[in-house]
Amino acid sequence: MSLAFSRVLRSSKRPSAKWTFSLRTMSSGSTLSDINPSKLVVKRNENPKSLPPSSQLKFGHTFSDHMLTIPWTQESGWGTPQIQPYGPLSLEPSCTVLHYAQTIFEGMKAYKDPEGKIRMFRPDMNMKRMNTSAHRIALPQFDGTALFELIKELVRLDKNWIPTEPGHSLYVRPTLIGTQKAIGVGPPNEALLFVILSPAGPYYPEGFKPIALYGTTEFVRAAPGGTGAFKLGVNYAPGILPQKFAAKQGYAQNLWLHGPEHYLTEVGTMNLFIAFHKEGGGIELATPPLDGMILPGVTRDSVLTLAREHAAGVRPIPGLPKDLTVSERPVTMAEVKEASLTGKLAELFGAGTAAVISPVDRIGYQGEDVHIPTGKDGMGPVSRHIWTELIGRQTGAIPSDWSVVI
Amino acid sequence: MSLAFSRVLRSSKRPSAKWTFSLRTMSSGSTLSDINPSKLVVKRNENPKSLPPSSQLKFGHTFSDHMLTIPWTQESGWGTPQIQPYGPLSLEPSCTVLHYAQTIFEGMKAYKDPEGKIRMFRPDMNMKRMNTSAHRIALPQFDGTALFELIKELVRLDKNWIPTEPGHSLYVRPTLIGTQKAIGVGPPNEALLFVILSPAGPYYPEGFKPIALYGTTEFVRAAPGGTGAFKLGVNYAPGILPQKFAAKQGYAQNLWLHGPEHYLTEVGTMNLFIAFHKEGGGIELATPPLDGMILPGVTRDSVLTLAREHAAGVRPIPGLPKDLTVSERPVTMAEVKEASLTGKLAELFGAGTAAVISPVDRIGYQGEDVHIPTGKDGMGPVSRHIWTELIGRQTGAIPSDWSVVI
Repeated sequence: MSLAFSRVLRSSKRPSAKWTFSLRTMSSGSTLSDINPSKLVVKRNENPKSLPPSSQLKFGHTFSDHMLTIPWTQESGWGTPQIQPYGPLSLEPSCTVLHYAQTIFEGMKAYKDPEGKIRMFRPDMNMKRMNTSAHRIALPQFDGTALFELIKELVRLDKNWIPTEPGHSLYVRPTLIGTQKAIGVGPPNEALLFVILSPAGPYYPEGFKPIALYGTTEFVRAAPGGTGAFKLGVNYAPGILPQKFAAKQGYAQNLWLHGPEHYLTEVGTMNLFIAFHKEGGGIELATPPLDGMILPGVTRDSVLTLAREHAAGVRPIPGLPKDLTVSERPVTMAEVKEASLTGKLAELFGAGTAAVISPVDRIGYQGEDVHIPTGKDGMGPVSRHIWTELIGRQTGAIPSDWSVVI
Repeated sequence: MSLAFSRVLRSSKRPSAKWTFSLRTMSSGSTLSDINPSKLVVKRNENPKSLPPSSQLKFGHTFSDHMLTIPWTQESGWGTPQIQPYGPLSLEPSCTVLHYAQTIFEGMKAYKDPEGKIRMFRPDMNMKRMNTSAHRIALPQFDGTALFELIKELVRLDKNWIPTEPGHSLYVRPTLIGTQKAIGVGPPNEALLFVILSPAGPYYPEGFKPIALYGTTEFVRAAPGGTGAFKLGVNYAPGILPQKFAAKQGYAQNLWLHGPEHYLTEVGTMNLFIAFHKEGGGIELATPPLDGMILPGVTRDSVLTLAREHAAGVRPIPGLPKDLTVSERPVTMAEVKEASLTGKLAELFGAGTAAVISPVDRIGYQGEDVHIPTGKDGMGPVSRHIWTELIGRQTGAIPSDWSVVI
């Protein structure tokens, strides 16, 4: 039998202004409860399992002993947060998420640093984005700081589930679903936020292996006025068929091309960077701008920030070319192809939470392959050094205020 | 306690070729089970409820005593169909539908005709479309005839839930969700098909009330290469915020406009028809073509077929103008606005399973209202007569092979 008890959270820091969110999109005029970490109820798992050996970890298939749930209703707002044994949810067959895809999620990682402290990377970014996503799909918003306090509790409780081998981490998946028990299309009167934890090995267990992309024009991931800039469930399932289509032709992922100009947008479920050799030396690192079709990725922002701080001399990154220009600008396939043929293409890589950096070695485009240079280690002159800095900051090996000890 | 028993279905007609689907998109080489109605297990609800009075029926809020579930796994295909008491589903928090919006659905209606027979309308269309949808989102396909056999069993068992007042029906909602217990993005290794029933009153309980539309260019419902032509959950939740935005400005629904030309595409979650007075008399009934952005609606197809059969003299519809041209062609807002100003606009209406026909009386467009004529009964010269014919066929008052006695 489970023992229920509530506890006062260790941390009660006031949220920083930049990532506190109001309930302004909820029913106006009423005073609804926000997420309240002090009301947390913990029901411990009486039958805890053990972290499987690293070799058995397949991404997203293993889950820890506990999960966090927080219900929401239109009448009273956010209810009692509960940490409870990981297990099935009971959902009415009529509930909104099952019919109309009303779901949003985030992906975060927790690491154990060399001293055994637990670290998470830029959680404020995920909490902020989750609120932006919620608004886009008419789900309730919340105090991101409060949710993160609860996530910390969950991760601390299941800290034995954080693998400690290099490149390993505990993947943290907050999800928010519409659970209204009615099949009309509209804002829900009930929702459920839950957080589950999945221990994860390195994306490339045997070192970086560049992937081949299929330049996709038959299907779109996003369109102007659509949902591509938000982390909604709806952006993912429709990509599975195109991915199978790409795989059939020998490519690992889709390179989503937009419009008659074939603008590069994203890679599979990652943001995208292209590095060009500049005339007369140095490198330009380019990524598509946040034009409404591009997900504002945490890794994307981190790569841009690191590269810009390096370029400005604020914080040089060892090994990275001194002459580095950082651009958020549209890039077409014609430009990439031309750069590949003339030797001006330095590298091309995906960036996202799961894989961190994912180098690319070719793009299938209009019946032929565009070659992308990669180094012996599978990486290029920008990604190699950015990756080292990023991983160092994530794991705590390199001190940084991006890494939050929890 | 529930009593489980299997039964042989009354009907064992062979499926007609046109709506039988192979399992060709499932794992190749293996022989996987298709949906098999003869394996049906029925667990009767020991605590049946009663159909509430009509006045208490709010669309999609009340459900009947039973539901149908059919599980699927990658290893063995479709499993045992089960009719069981309506109640919550137990879903792992990791399952695909909750994170990546892997869900498709259909909307159908069952009627009791004047003789008390149960009728459904063009179910072959829904079964065919559900398979097309499944393929688009990497969910398993199935024998549509077999599923319909099981739906018939379910509806017959809950036949007391079919309201008999004029304009009432039992709304039938088949849904198929990805239930893989893992958070990687990919084809699922598990899925669940379920069917629930909801008694429904007329969409317009007090007669037709034309609605106002907001000509929407800030948001898109669909885009070329996207999923607009398929009945996927992902097409619905993203429309809620735009609908709230329209409502704030005093409009009931979005009129989804596409591209710089502002092509009319759909209305809210309905297909769209525009009727123009032709030069020299007669009427053109136009609807946007199935260009990949338009849902191939059953009501859309029925309106087109009825209008074409009338125009060709095959089966004249009383009251409908004799000189009728039926077009599937792109229509721009400029054309609608011009027609409104010059008196050439006859009417504009939405068409879908829930509302059947939904007349429109104005469109908010670029800061002003475009006026749409409607008759005293809220309908126009085409919709009035098409609606009468359609409802007659659906309810069995007008004999038609579209109406299937079950």
